[in-house]
Amino acid sequence: MENKSYGQHISQQYNEELEDVRNRVLAMGGLVEQQLADAVTALVDGDVELGEQVITLDYQVNAFEVSIDEECSRILARRQPAASDLRLVVAVIKTITDLERIGDQAERVGRMSLRLAQGDAGRAHYSEIKHLGDHVRQMLHDALDALARMDPEAAVKVAREDIKVDKEYESLMRQLITYMMEDPRTITRVLDIMWSARALERVGDHARNICEYIIYLVMGKDVRHTSLERMEQEARGKR
Amino acid sequence: MENKSYGQHISQQYNEELEDVRNRVLAMGGLVEQQLADAVTALVDGDVELGEQVITLDYQVNAFEVSIDEECSRILARRQPAASDLRLVVAVIKTITDLERIGDQAERVGRMSLRLAQGDAGRAHYSEIKHLGDHVRQMLHDALDALARMDPEAAVKVAREDIKVDKEYESLMRQLITYMMEDPRTITRVLDIMWSARALERVGDHARNICEYIIYLVMGKDVRHTSLERMEQEARGKR
Repeated sequence: MENKSYGQHISQQYNEELEDVRNRVLAMGGLVEQQLADAVTALVDGDVELGEQVITLDYQVNAFEVSIDEECSRILARRQPAASDLRLVVAVIKTITDLERIGDQAERVGRMSLRLAQGDAGRAHYSEIKHLGDHVRQMLHDALDALARMDPEAAVKVAREDIKVDKEYESLMRQLITYMMEDPRTITRVLDIMWSARALERVGDHARNICEYIIYLVMGKDVRHTSLERMEQEARGKR
Repeated sequence: MENKSYGQHISQQYNEELEDVRNRVLAMGGLVEQQLADAVTALVDGDVELGEQVITLDYQVNAFEVSIDEECSRILARRQPAASDLRLVVAVIKTITDLERIGDQAERVGRMSLRLAQGDAGRAHYSEIKHLGDHVRQMLHDALDALARMDPEAAVKVAREDIKVDKEYESLMRQLITYMMEDPRTITRVLDIMWSARALERVGDHARNICEYIIYLVMGKDVRHTSLERMEQEARGKR
């Protein structure tokens, strides 16, 4: 309470706190992006060491989540943010949940990479796995970029990519089903490839969620559970 | 600001707002629990109508999430809650995200129930699916109960169940893999059963997350990403 008399100075410090929390989300996002890229590389290249590293480093993602959450609670309690500041804090709390879950998916792919390092069945489909992995990693990257620039139109563009990701995923699954039907001895291995593909597809969903928070943050509109068209309208409302 | 002069009266209204948001989370939880139970019944009984109903009603779960989120933002902006009130609001924001995702998993099982309604392969494993479904529904029920009673020790008990759920899930997956290997013509169908089992296993994870928020809410300790033992210690710290 007494802090309020500091006026401008405190406001400056408050701005820095908000800026800091935003930067830390972006740093957490960068780490998750790297984890995801490494997990896909570990799987495709059969790099056991890299796969183990992805699993080990998941704790760093978790630690980010816990500490950013703490910082948000501190800001809510001390600064009592309103309007767009409040939306920033709420959007951050939601974004880091999705980032942490992308980290979990990367860890999952890392675990699969260890199991898949031996053997060859299904390797012909690794190029599609790589492609799917690159696609969702790019989505995540662009979502974080849209967050950094507070750009709702860029966020809609990223969300739109998720439709393509889902199609790629469905197509890969159909191929993998055909493959395991033709040679049932490959079932166990191919299932692991399927779980990996599934994990990557989920990353696309999480990236899309982050895009929805960006629109909420910038435009003040909750576009979850609405159509892409509605999302686009809300994002354009700004300009 | 001027509201503050109303003193006790406003504080009473504020209490009612907090109580209301808590009740709405419990109502949302009750709906999700019903959706989950219906999805499993639809799958096991091959009840297409019930499966379609589960899919259709998912919008209600989503609407709950959006409106409770709005209410939380309003409370944060107007009431500027501190200490345990703030933790309640933060815990609610997180809990409804997990409830919404349990709703998504129920919807997923509902979709699978439509695809699985024709055909018989794998039906012998429906009793395990039913068992897994009952188990995670009970976890969700008990987690909501622990939330209603603000009981961290009950929350730990629920979280502990997730280990058993994971084991049941693993065992079911192994059986299903054997089954599809023995008769590769069943692969497509059995995969749908696997996706359903996977969705149910994820419900257990979300129920566990809710338990972690309860401990945060009541004890002020963030026990995410820690061991069950640590969680238990923090939960006991209270008494």
